[in-house]
Amino acid sequence: MQSQVHGGDIYSAEYSNDFSISTSPLGMPDGVRKAYIESANTLSQYPDVRCRELRTVISKEFLIPKEWIVCSAGAAELIYAVANAIRPRSGLVIAPSFSEYETALRLSGCTDIRFYTCREESGFLIGEDILDLITDDLDLFYLCNPNNPTGVLVSFELMLEIVERCRQKHVLLVLDECYVGLLRYPKQVTMLRRLEGNDYLFILNAFTKLYSVPGLRLGVGVTSSRPLLEKVRSCMQPWNVSSAAQACGIAALRDKAYVHRVRETVQEEMDFLKSSFDRIGITWYGSSSNFMFFRGPEDLFDRCAAEGILIRDCSNYRGLEPGYFRVSCRMRRDNEKLCGILAGIYAEEDYRLRKQK
Amino acid sequence: MQSQVHGGDIYSAEYSNDFSISTSPLGMPDGVRKAYIESANTLSQYPDVRCRELRTVISKEFLIPKEWIVCSAGAAELIYAVANAIRPRSGLVIAPSFSEYETALRLSGCTDIRFYTCREESGFLIGEDILDLITDDLDLFYLCNPNNPTGVLVSFELMLEIVERCRQKHVLLVLDECYVGLLRYPKQVTMLRRLEGNDYLFILNAFTKLYSVPGLRLGVGVTSSRPLLEKVRSCMQPWNVSSAAQACGIAALRDKAYVHRVRETVQEEMDFLKSSFDRIGITWYGSSSNFMFFRGPEDLFDRCAAEGILIRDCSNYRGLEPGYFRVSCRMRRDNEKLCGILAGIYAEEDYRLRKQK
Repeated sequence: MQSQVHGGDIYSAEYSNDFSISTSPLGMPDGVRKAYIESANTLSQYPDVRCRELRTVISKEFLIPKEWIVCSAGAAELIYAVANAIRPRSGLVIAPSFSEYETALRLSGCTDIRFYTCREESGFLIGEDILDLITDDLDLFYLCNPNNPTGVLVSFELMLEIVERCRQKHVLLVLDECYVGLLRYPKQVTMLRRLEGNDYLFILNAFTKLYSVPGLRLGVGVTSSRPLLEKVRSCMQPWNVSSAAQACGIAALRDKAYVHRVRETVQEEMDFLKSSFDRIGITWYGSSSNFMFFRGPEDLFDRCAAEGILIRDCSNYRGLEPGYFRVSCRMRRDNEKLCGILAGIYAEEDYRLRKQK
Repeated sequence: MQSQVHGGDIYSAEYSNDFSISTSPLGMPDGVRKAYIESANTLSQYPDVRCRELRTVISKEFLIPKEWIVCSAGAAELIYAVANAIRPRSGLVIAPSFSEYETALRLSGCTDIRFYTCREESGFLIGEDILDLITDDLDLFYLCNPNNPTGVLVSFELMLEIVERCRQKHVLLVLDECYVGLLRYPKQVTMLRRLEGNDYLFILNAFTKLYSVPGLRLGVGVTSSRPLLEKVRSCMQPWNVSSAAQACGIAALRDKAYVHRVRETVQEEMDFLKSSFDRIGITWYGSSSNFMFFRGPEDLFDRCAAEGILIRDCSNYRGLEPGYFRVSCRMRRDNEKLCGILAGIYAEEDYRLRKQK
């Protein structure tokens, strides 16, 4: 069987705190829980293949036509479906980034996979040299902004240039905005307003992170290209979006207060983590989203696990070596607990290193 | 967007009764509903990628090793994943049958698609001549037993021959047993006991029909070939099976009494429908499972819809023309209502035809 390459594997051992997943610290909104429970009454019906009501609500929320929207069983399904729809000869991905992009390219038969490697010395930033890789002979470019696992955000200006260059060079840009909803000012980041008239932009989003519902499986794809949307749709099975996912998606989008609270909490807790990490002496990078990306002793995962804390060991990301980790921000009490444990480990480590000298 | 080619589209209009879907007439078991509602507490966790607990329970129920089992978001996901895993040059499907087999072949890039056409004059039976189509140059064969939409059952002896010939000719037989659980004596039909030592048999099953949970999305694939299982698994996205589906699957398998009741009810209600159809003068075929497949006036769908009854117009199945329909058995009161409406329509039709003569 496939080994677990992502975070959130709470099934292999017992953990009191899971910092390995990058979902909202507030947990699921009450309205979503209610919608979920009510959807038990619709389980004996096939879900609406076209997700009509959900797409109408998304359309109003995103301020885009309903006809531009396709729903999926989590963003992962769309990542695969786009690659299968395009069957690209060449694809570009960022290293390190979410590993499913590269996997989707390989499974679609793409053999010419190119990488833009973010370097530690430049803080894992994505620089203007990315534009040089958007060439006539490139078919598909997966970009996650803010990036996972680094939390690095591409500047708005550079992002506009990337979108424009992809359009000019006929490179389909699959822009994963799964974390944008958690940012304080999403409108300053999203490229949703750049979709119109651009056949080479496909934006991914998901309910997973913002509403803390990874168990639900609900993703959204948006493009103004009708032929592309139809091709992508044809690469997904019918009834891919469960009745529960459709009902919960609608309930989630109605809860504006929740989103407001998530954004405030994430900002406060990330500020707390950043200052705590600085105090402990942890080197961290990016972290513009709701998770901290940082260096640590190579055995940090095990040492945290021994304390009942699950963190994300990032050594299996392409472009990273052992010694990089990701933790998401949770609520203050849990974050304090994490920082307490990390402080202890880093103090021990300092002592060990000083003794070695 | 994809148009709805399957049954169960209750979203386009209002219907008081849906006979177009072929699920258990009893509706969802109470234990499944309870498990579903309780699973609201796990939505903020990623589902177990490997479906460990669910696979353990399936293993005990099916009496097969856990290592032979892969779970999916409905059987449809597996139908696609197997084709993508094998990338067959040639594939065989039955006409008429569930259209997703052919679609999966096409999407996987298969261009040499062959058909075994069931003829009305032989009651849409699958005969021994099917063996002649299982040849050295065939890669994949999708077979649904009992078949959908005809309800025709392949005899046990012929099924054994098909399995053996596929093994000899190195043709992967993807055997869809989604309806087997609803039969009175499933052990006399299933090929689960023929998996061992056979690398060319992949059995599909789903919770959808037996437990009436099409909204849930939970399918099961079984094969004793480890390399095949791993290849299929790699063609599905991680977290394809939601937390709800995993919890409900476990609860469903624990409710043996429900399954017993379904089988009794289906037999009684199918007997009722068959004798009623005979009395009305409706020509029907096969119908060994939980649905009736029959001839009717070409506008029967609309005439039933006008009475608030949704039936399955089968004219879009390959191998069928307008004038074939499928209705599933529901509970007695609904079945009586259906028969009353059909009796009225057929009486009118008789009168019209007599007047024309």
